[in-house]
Amino acid sequence: MIITLKKEMSKAEMDTMIHELESVNSVAVTVIPGETFNVLGLVGDTTKIDEKHLRANKFVENVTRIAAPYKKANRMFHPEDTVVSIAGGRVKIGGHEKIAIMGGPCSVESHEQMMIIGEAVRNAGASMLRGGAYKPRTSPYAFQGMATEGIKCMTDARECFGLPIVSELMSADKIDEFVENVDLIQVGARNMQNFELLKALGRIKTPILLKRGLANTIEEWIMAAEYIMAGGNSNVIFCERGIRTFEKYTRNTLDLSVIPIIKQKTHLPIVIDPSHGTGYWEYVESMSLAAIAAGADGLIIEVHHDPERAASDGTQSLKPKRFAEVIERGRQIAQVIGRDI
Amino acid sequence: MIITLKKEMSKAEMDTMIHELESVNSVAVTVIPGETFNVLGLVGDTTKIDEKHLRANKFVENVTRIAAPYKKANRMFHPEDTVVSIAGGRVKIGGHEKIAIMGGPCSVESHEQMMIIGEAVRNAGASMLRGGAYKPRTSPYAFQGMATEGIKCMTDARECFGLPIVSELMSADKIDEFVENVDLIQVGARNMQNFELLKALGRIKTPILLKRGLANTIEEWIMAAEYIMAGGNSNVIFCERGIRTFEKYTRNTLDLSVIPIIKQKTHLPIVIDPSHGTGYWEYVESMSLAAIAAGADGLIIEVHHDPERAASDGTQSLKPKRFAEVIERGRQIAQVIGRDI
Amino acid sequence: MIITLKKEMSKAEMDTMIHELESVNSVAVTVIPGETFNVLGLVGDTTKIDEKHLRANKFVENVTRIAAPYKKANRMFHPEDTVVSIAGGRVKIGGHEKIAIMGGPCSVESHEQMMIIGEAVRNAGASMLRGGAYKPRTSPYAFQGMATEGIKCMTDARECFGLPIVSELMSADKIDEFVENVDLIQVGARNMQNFELLKALGRIKTPILLKRGLANTIEEWIMAAEYIMAGGNSNVIFCERGIRTFEKYTRNTLDLSVIPIIKQKTHLPIVIDPSHGTGYWEYVESMSLAAIAAGADGLIIEVHHDPERAASDGTQSLKPKRFAEVIERGRQIAQVIGRDI
Amino acid sequence: MIITLKKEMSKAEMDTMIHELESVNSVAVTVIPGETFNVLGLVGDTTKIDEKHLRANKFVENVTRIAAPYKKANRMFHPEDTVVSIAGGRVKIGGHEKIAIMGGPCSVESHEQMMIIGEAVRNAGASMLRGGAYKPRTSPYAFQGMATEGIKCMTDARECFGLPIVSELMSADKIDEFVENVDLIQVGARNMQNFELLKALGRIKTPILLKRGLANTIEEWIMAAEYIMAGGNSNVIFCERGIRTFEKYTRNTLDLSVIPIIKQKTHLPIVIDPSHGTGYWEYVESMSLAAIAAGADGLIIEVHHDPERAASDGTQSLKPKRFAEVIERGRQIAQVIGRDI
Repeated sequence: MIITLKKEMSKAEMDTMIHELESVNSVAVTVIPGETFNVLGLVGDTTKIDEKHLRANKFVENVTRIAAPYKKANRMFHPEDTVVSIAGGRVKIGGHEKIAIMGGPCSVESHEQMMIIGEAVRNAGASMLRGGAYKPRTSPYAFQGMATEGIKCMTDARECFGLPIVSELMSADKIDEFVENVDLIQVGARNMQNFELLKALGRIKTPILLKRGLANTIEEWIMAAEYIMAGGNSNVIFCERGIRTFEKYTRNTLDLSVIPIIKQKTHLPIVIDPSHGTGYWEYVESMSLAAIAAGADGLIIEVHHDPERAASDGTQSLKPKRFAEVIERGRQIAQVIGRDI
Repeated sequence: MIITLKKEMSKAEMDTMIHELESVNSVAVTVIPGETFNVLGLVGDTTKIDEKHLRANKFVENVTRIAAPYKKANRMFHPEDTVVSIAGGRVKIGGHEKIAIMGGPCSVESHEQMMIIGEAVRNAGASMLRGGAYKPRTSPYAFQGMATEGIKCMTDARECFGLPIVSELMSADKIDEFVENVDLIQVGARNMQNFELLKALGRIKTPILLKRGLANTIEEWIMAAEYIMAGGNSNVIFCERGIRTFEKYTRNTLDLSVIPIIKQKTHLPIVIDPSHGTGYWEYVESMSLAAIAAGADGLIIEVHHDPERAASDGTQSLKPKRFAEVIERGRQIAQVIGRDI
Repeated sequence: MIITLKKEMSKAEMDTMIHELESVNSVAVTVIPGETFNVLGLVGDTTKIDEKHLRANKFVENVTRIAAPYKKANRMFHPEDTVVSIAGGRVKIGGHEKIAIMGGPCSVESHEQMMIIGEAVRNAGASMLRGGAYKPRTSPYAFQGMATEGIKCMTDARECFGLPIVSELMSADKIDEFVENVDLIQVGARNMQNFELLKALGRIKTPILLKRGLANTIEEWIMAAEYIMAGGNSNVIFCERGIRTFEKYTRNTLDLSVIPIIKQKTHLPIVIDPSHGTGYWEYVESMSLAAIAAGADGLIIEVHHDPERAASDGTQSLKPKRFAEVIERGRQIAQVIGRDI
Repeated sequence: MIITLKKEMSKAEMDTMIHELESVNSVAVTVIPGETFNVLGLVGDTTKIDEKHLRANKFVENVTRIAAPYKKANRMFHPEDTVVSIAGGRVKIGGHEKIAIMGGPCSVESHEQMMIIGEAVRNAGASMLRGGAYKPRTSPYAFQGMATEGIKCMTDARECFGLPIVSELMSADKIDEFVENVDLIQVGARNMQNFELLKALGRIKTPILLKRGLANTIEEWIMAAEYIMAGGNSNVIFCERGIRTFEKYTRNTLDLSVIPIIKQKTHLPIVIDPSHGTGYWEYVESMSLAAIAAGADGLIIEVHHDPERAASDGTQSLKPKRFAEVIERGRQIAQVIGRDI
């Protein structure tokens, strides 16, 4: 950590600050006297030093962190890829081999719907079934999801078609229901910094699919994973679903550069959601192939047999036939880079 | 609501769509045939029609909403200003007279600290005391707040100095504690779209200070208020605390244009937080005076007697003397526009 | 075009407005009376109607454009792909076959440098040579480019290695120099809305590589192409080079979704710049493969034999060996989707 | 400047780098060995060291600049406020006394229009007349301005009403026309990083009104001023006109926090444009009063006697009567903070 100090700070004041840093935080401090500023270089574990705390000192011009603020997610301290095991190992996400494909509707709408889509998704070659039973909606007047009944539709479909299920948890009070029934628990974009929820998820063992917030940096996203991991649950999978930009031709802007970045900075897997990432089914195929070519560990795609009548997000859903074609083409791309679906 | 249809849609298909719209949603539909597109104009209550649902139809080019998606917060249906009454009317926020000033530390740190700051804040002329007992922190390794003990420090200070208190609630499981002890419950920026929390707050009567999300539009913010109001709690006060932009010289970019906009679109009060809004105490005075000149109904300002030792956000805290000066100057500005502090 | 009118507007005022719209702009107007607003639907050529002009009327609540504001670039009026022919057809960009690869340094630094890199780029299998002779730099104290001498180094390299050249033009006063010497003229991101420059480029025939502005929407980008095309030069190639977002781990955020969007909305080719798009050479390979998988018509990549000593942007430059590997892998991806490099 | 080096860098490689930095750039280098990284602290004039150049070294993890990259605009080296003198001192902008008010239409439309508005603007108490003769328009099909004839209309109005004029220059080839006729030359938001234009403006003496780019940071804005100043023209006035954000209820988001920031970081004056800054005349008054309360040195406001028929931007224009009221109220606010209009 580097602290830039104004020249107005007296020698005595600087000495006091250095003494405090060294005694409280057990770091070693080097002073570099400059022309317009003096600079302190701190060596040691600085993760617990609060930058804003330091900045409150009127003589502090700036504080720069050299080391990343995350430890458990940091590849520097854990060089091998983490492979997350789902449903007792029936699906594995991460590493260099298989790419996992998850498909299903935005919202669970009925038992029949999950049966139709579950079968279609399995036949297309997907390895997991997605569906939303609790729905975060911008308007209080919009459909809020089937709740417990929706989870039941999903577990029924799992039983029939043998696909582990992924679904979004919106509040900590439903955590027992999810631990019991859901194989991969999704944290939605709007809850990425719902710290109380993250803490609760750190206390369970079920794998977490952590979506990136709409306007969050990659570092904040990794820090959200760090919250879960610091609590004791290291089964975290990142999921990019597009960020908010000025663009109006798409619902969000899908940031595929997170794929090499997440792999460089962390040891955790990364999955891409091209459906929310663009908002239009017309763009889902090209973004899916691009994600695979870039090295993604999985895709999560919205599939609906009758998108025009979907309870939500029909615009971005693929029909089953198209979904199967995307998987087929994706497999060929995967093979070029030495992987498979 | 306006629906733009591609010319490829047959007459029969268009008739079916119109029939469905008219029968299910009881709206009246007018057709405007164009050269490159046909257009449907819908008249009636369209708040429950889901735009994305319509967009899923392959013949739909675009959907445009004419009326605002919010009703209870909409000034069109409630022309008079709402004045929110806090602590049984001891403080009133909204309307054209008094501007409310809230001051206090970012984090509650100790009983003694709240006593010192509570007294200073009252002597400076503020009408409410702020303090954070539950803290949303980006890092799991940072100070997470004093929790229940912190709330106790605040209620003690309230008892001593007669200032109603405002504090942030981070999860629905603490709602009883807040209803019992806190006069104005703050929803933080990161929870603005925590819909389960908003629903829970709709079921109580305590006034809510609803902070704007870091990257949310004003319409999304009003929709968050609509969630609370739709549940039955109409005591909502908006609080602008800066939005995320590309700027690096400030922590956030304070958007003061929300003041005339919120007053035009809604009937609810609007309060400005220049501390989080800029991130640096040096900019707090000029932004406070600007907010008052622009018509804000209140200010919430971080105050600390020893900012360099504050547990969080010392950089943006005013010392009590400076805080008193801001109030004094602010009062003169307020009088120019016919109000008072 | 849809105009939403407030109910306060009298029948007579509305009739005057409709009469004016119909007589001046020769459009047909339909009225849809609503409960909270009245709506006008305009049919005919509305490209010359100024939305802001209409909005200035105090009774106008909103104006919505149904048809896209661009015509010459619009695929609706020109369904076939445009293939841009460079250097008399030596390179063709667009269509469904060959993907063009352009490589070279950020800045031209010397005759020798261009000879070394030109040879390396040709041997790697690229079809064009890039290099900057005029450099847009944020600081007036940074290297501003070799200017005319730099262009000479490039034409020398072209002569030796047979690769057409692409270089950035920063102001209209150098246009003759570029028409005479450069095969593909680049408009940089910061000049995307330098309308005087765009108009000047509309008067020549040399193909233009139009980079997207740092914070511009796709529609604004297409409108910049429309400026060039409206002037008479229809040889325009789009180039995505990353947009500004809140992310700090990359220089820009590369938006690969523009590939299917540009192809859907326009008939012009699209090229991707993964070097500026990410800012780090480590991410260039995965973004290059992703761009090809997504359907890009070309790549423009920074290549330097000695990146640590490059005059600019060494961080994002590939060494020749790595560049050759990217082309080789990219070719395999291209073949999966039925194309070639 | 702080350079963070990976531990993989050998002692010999580090010594070579240090030697090079010290000999080429005459800076002094201090080494701080750390656990995960080594850090170099550079003391001396680092403005000419290129960060990206350093980052290209594979052992460099990060480079952090301690000192600001601007010198001539930096208040640290020029503590007194610069007062820019316009039209031979008839108007002065900057310092602690008078606040300058500029009013006039977005576009010059006719001689008669400038006479009507010029008179109204003078009678309202403004000190300068604005008007656009060359117009940057997003669409090539929109009105592009009256050009030289428009400038003539403005100089005629200046002669009649004694108000110095401000107008936008879009390309360097018109610079002589502007030096001869215009008192304050405006650089528009889209040209803020048109470096060739900035260089040309550095070679003249006419004062420059430098608008902030739509998505530029304050540091980039100051660097644009530095370009002009480095060329020899130190008469630069900053003009905030709103930045692009996700907001849809306004055209741009007016950032008033630039007022205290520009005054802290530089010695140059700052003027606010609430018309472009919000896009709607309804919000202009409150933002004007806020700007004055925050310490702005001037306002530039769009005024039109018949906004509904304005050739551009009628939505955001005040009528003369309202403009006079804003000035009158603004004067009272100014007096509270010890200034005047």
